[in-house]
Amino acid sequence: MRRAVVLLSGGLDSATVAAVAKDEGYAVSALSVRYGQRHAAELDAARAVAEQLGIEDHRIVDIGLGSLGGSALTDAALDVPKNAIGAAGIPITYVPARNTVFLALALGHAEVIGAQDIFFGANALDYSGYPDCRPAFREAFEALANVATKAVDDPSIRYRVLAPLMDLTKAEIIRLGTRLGVDYGQTHSCYDPSGALACGACDSCLLRKKGFEEAGVPDPTRYA
Amino acid sequence: MRRAVVLLSGGLDSATVAAVAKDEGYAVSALSVRYGQRHAAELDAARAVAEQLGIEDHRIVDIGLGSLGGSALTDAALDVPKNAIGAAGIPITYVPARNTVFLALALGHAEVIGAQDIFFGANALDYSGYPDCRPAFREAFEALANVATKAVDDPSIRYRVLAPLMDLTKAEIIRLGTRLGVDYGQTHSCYDPSGALACGACDSCLLRKKGFEEAGVPDPTRYA
Repeated sequence: MRRAVVLLSGGLDSATVAAVAKDEGYAVSALSVRYGQRHAAELDAARAVAEQLGIEDHRIVDIGLGSLGGSALTDAALDVPKNAIGAAGIPITYVPARNTVFLALALGHAEVIGAQDIFFGANALDYSGYPDCRPAFREAFEALANVATKAVDDPSIRYRVLAPLMDLTKAEIIRLGTRLGVDYGQTHSCYDPSGALACGACDSCLLRKKGFEEAGVPDPTRYA
Repeated sequence: MRRAVVLLSGGLDSATVAAVAKDEGYAVSALSVRYGQRHAAELDAARAVAEQLGIEDHRIVDIGLGSLGGSALTDAALDVPKNAIGAAGIPITYVPARNTVFLALALGHAEVIGAQDIFFGANALDYSGYPDCRPAFREAFEALANVATKAVDDPSIRYRVLAPLMDLTKAEIIRLGTRLGVDYGQTHSCYDPSGALACGACDSCLLRKKGFEEAGVPDPTRYA
């Protein structure tokens, strides 16, 4: 049985990717990262999603990314913007090099357990504009993976970085996950750490709401 | 004044690289990583080196790399090999994706503080054979950095990953650092966590001893 490492944040996209990997027959090892995100409800969601999908190997790696600062997702001094989709530039919720760090961890884990396929939920259509969610990033990381590891000396090892949601709209992602049995009520997308419910107005909530509407799927999210 | 991020492990190579960056006129921000290494004396050495070189901005990021296992440097169940230089293959002290993770952290830090140059002490001559210390790795990470970050949308940002020791012998590195005022008595190279003194027999100690001999520089290391 082929093994795969899936980066599982606990959000809608990564839950869908985990279901895709399961559906493709992989033995899935899920990896979540506690990186100082203020919306720590994400990690509870990741645990619930892993359980719901029957993923037994789920690891949470701690990393003090917050100590580097620079993002509204890790720095309590910065506000999470509301109703700002489509604003120019890369938003303040961008966490510098986050997906680079996460994929690096996933690569290390893959090398240890003998997996060659790494899945992550990057999506470059209905997204916040982060650079590390785009096709060029995926390609560059895959190229790196094959020179950064024992793969460089061993032709039997060839890492792949798979982003099956890259070219899907949010509605298409939701339809795909629904078909594969994802319980989106378990997932957490909201960037705002201040309330128990999703804020309904940050980029992530707005994209999620619009996605359910366009997919014609009932939105199980409880908004404030 | 140009800013640079320097990955500072506390070993001989990274101390030399930090001195090179200072000598080239950079405002140096040093980054060390507590990654579950058993030879934690490295971090004390990193602090001492930063102080000796007059680097005021020195951050230590915590990361639970040990929880992923797979290396004699992070797993107490695995022995650090002795007198094994030149053995075939990549040694058990290799930490999967370590430099990928470290450079990812350095890249995030660089993006936050507005540095575009990242220095690391990779060296592909007198080394243990790790894949992530070779020129192809440096090149691939530099390519990644420029699509993983805001640089992809901003032509005024161009990250460079600099490995000025890549093609030097250990003796040349020691002569260079000695000329730049590095106090190698403050650095720590030994992989073996079991004693207070350097073991003198792991790959790292063997390379270090040979380097001082060939450089004709007195070796300040206290071996067991």
